[in-house]
Amino acid sequence: MTSNTTNEIDIVRASTSKIDAVDFENLTFGNIFTDHMLICDYKNGAWEKPLIKPYEPFLIDPSAKVFHYGQAIFEGMKAYKDENDAVWLFRPDENHKRFNHSAKRLAMPEIPEEIFINGLHEILKIEKDWVKKGKGNSLYIRPFMIAIGTGVIAQPSTQYRFMIILSPARSYYSGEVKVIIAEHYSRAANGGIGAAKAAGNYSAQFYPTKLANEKGFQQIIWTDDATHTKLEEAGTMNLFFRIKDTLYTAPTSERILDGVTRKSLIEIAKKEGIAVEVRSVLVSELIEASKDGSLMEIFGAGTAAVVNPVVGFSYQDTYYELPKLENSFALLLKEKLTNIQYKIDDDTFGWTVKVK
Amino acid sequence: MTSNTTNEIDIVRASTSKIDAVDFENLTFGNIFTDHMLICDYKNGAWEKPLIKPYEPFLIDPSAKVFHYGQAIFEGMKAYKDENDAVWLFRPDENHKRFNHSAKRLAMPEIPEEIFINGLHEILKIEKDWVKKGKGNSLYIRPFMIAIGTGVIAQPSTQYRFMIILSPARSYYSGEVKVIIAEHYSRAANGGIGAAKAAGNYSAQFYPTKLANEKGFQQIIWTDDATHTKLEEAGTMNLFFRIKDTLYTAPTSERILDGVTRKSLIEIAKKEGIAVEVRSVLVSELIEASKDGSLMEIFGAGTAAVVNPVVGFSYQDTYYELPKLENSFALLLKEKLTNIQYKIDDDTFGWTVKVK
Repeated sequence: MTSNTTNEIDIVRASTSKIDAVDFENLTFGNIFTDHMLICDYKNGAWEKPLIKPYEPFLIDPSAKVFHYGQAIFEGMKAYKDENDAVWLFRPDENHKRFNHSAKRLAMPEIPEEIFINGLHEILKIEKDWVKKGKGNSLYIRPFMIAIGTGVIAQPSTQYRFMIILSPARSYYSGEVKVIIAEHYSRAANGGIGAAKAAGNYSAQFYPTKLANEKGFQQIIWTDDATHTKLEEAGTMNLFFRIKDTLYTAPTSERILDGVTRKSLIEIAKKEGIAVEVRSVLVSELIEASKDGSLMEIFGAGTAAVVNPVVGFSYQDTYYELPKLENSFALLLKEKLTNIQYKIDDDTFGWTVKVK
Repeated sequence: MTSNTTNEIDIVRASTSKIDAVDFENLTFGNIFTDHMLICDYKNGAWEKPLIKPYEPFLIDPSAKVFHYGQAIFEGMKAYKDENDAVWLFRPDENHKRFNHSAKRLAMPEIPEEIFINGLHEILKIEKDWVKKGKGNSLYIRPFMIAIGTGVIAQPSTQYRFMIILSPARSYYSGEVKVIIAEHYSRAANGGIGAAKAAGNYSAQFYPTKLANEKGFQQIIWTDDATHTKLEEAGTMNLFFRIKDTLYTAPTSERILDGVTRKSLIEIAKKEGIAVEVRSVLVSELIEASKDGSLMEIFGAGTAAVVNPVVGFSYQDTYYELPKLENSFALLLKEKLTNIQYKIDDDTFGWTVKVK
């Protein structure tokens, strides 16, 4: 291992790289990590100097509050490589902003730009060989923060650890996606933490998703927990519904995550002359539109999945199939978005950020 | 360190004890841990042999699912010492049952009695000197389970770690408890995980509680998230309301934890001839009862706090003070319950279990 230090970050390099052992053509999402990770601890009311070091397990106390009270938040981002071997981030400021929004809601300290954004640049410079060229290839980036302070009293921690780990990726979902509309279980409460990318929001979905999987559905379309009449999001994706030639997506709220892919697709759609309405869509509207043939598409939008078309949905034990379209908005928007991300098309929105 | 093995558990003893350094008269809740911990891992679809070993930090991968998706559950229990130096558990079967209920809801493996209950007995035998005699003294027991499997894909882990750690305790709360009734934030969704002792339920309350603290209130009385009209629980305690001479407590539900102290107090109250009604109490009823003088008491009930009387509550920026009573049900029930737990009174309910 060799050590060096930038102005803001200490760096301890791995003596060897694992990269040659990785089969980049056959990656399972989120299972393999690059050679390095970034660690930055928060103690005594301040963030310490970040450290980039070899990826490895770390020691933690059994009474660390993350284990008992779930103070844990994360972000999902990707880095892309263009044809000239430059590495690009997509709207990292949005992830940073949302990370701090999550932090506030979980009573955790916000993290400054110097650590979050500069940390991303520094670790991506070191790991640039892990970002492979070609559409569909990316380096998935997982910034996260956990409470490492000790003690089994239900109070916020005073010590935290921010980390960035990186995992080479191809695509998140495969195969046809059938979804089921939630009639009993739910993802988020009014006045709850649904808008935060909090760890606890995900494990809460595992059991209902397992039940859905057993019925042959890959994902759940969550509805509002009070009435189960409004379509909300899919847990790891925001949702778009195309009725005739208008796209509908639920407004973000305390129950719905403010997805970066979602908001980017809305802007791209508008630029492409597609009508977009940001409003709650009722389950009853969806059923009616499916019955009268005006429901054209449903698709999910998220960093991991990018755009994920749905082939059909179930509600009250009836399965509704979606038409197979020539001119899919989902595929058009995915093409436009990924062309921006991979620097194939001009980024007229100013969303892409080159790794320094 | 010396090693030995029971039939079911491997034991590695600490070479020295920390106990002499502990000031048992001045304990802060949940900050100090005993010499040993129990660890039991779940891999390849099965629980491995449990190990009792010195309490210490352990290694975990940065991509462990507990950090990213919050698969983490726990229990809170206490051990008590009687005047003959015997150590007692209180209704451990209830905690075991609830632990497995939580596990199921979080898509985690259930844990067999041989590990949960026998593990408690074995570690308490080793740590019996940490259980101090005298009412108010106890050894707080924290069984918990975390997902240690790796990978940043939002799916249940295949590997888990069950642990038991122990912390000497006196009492959880001190001073007068003023509470505020939730009007915006909430603890649990319909169809959510509010009935599970899931880590994510607790961090979700930290920020609203911080806001309450800043206004001079120690706790929040959570209401239903849809209408904020029904009184539910206090996050780490179930709630009892005494109007005239009847005690009311909300029925357990998907949103409300099935507290062991709560259900024990209901039975004790009935035995004492106190009328108990298990039904939702409306905020409006509480306000009305306070105004007409029929609201006599509010108190919380939980393992850590035992019984926690409330001196007043705030709703819509109005503060309602509770009367100071001679014949408090809260204090009567606390006395009766702790007399059973400390083996001062006969345990006619069959709740206490002697550590073998």
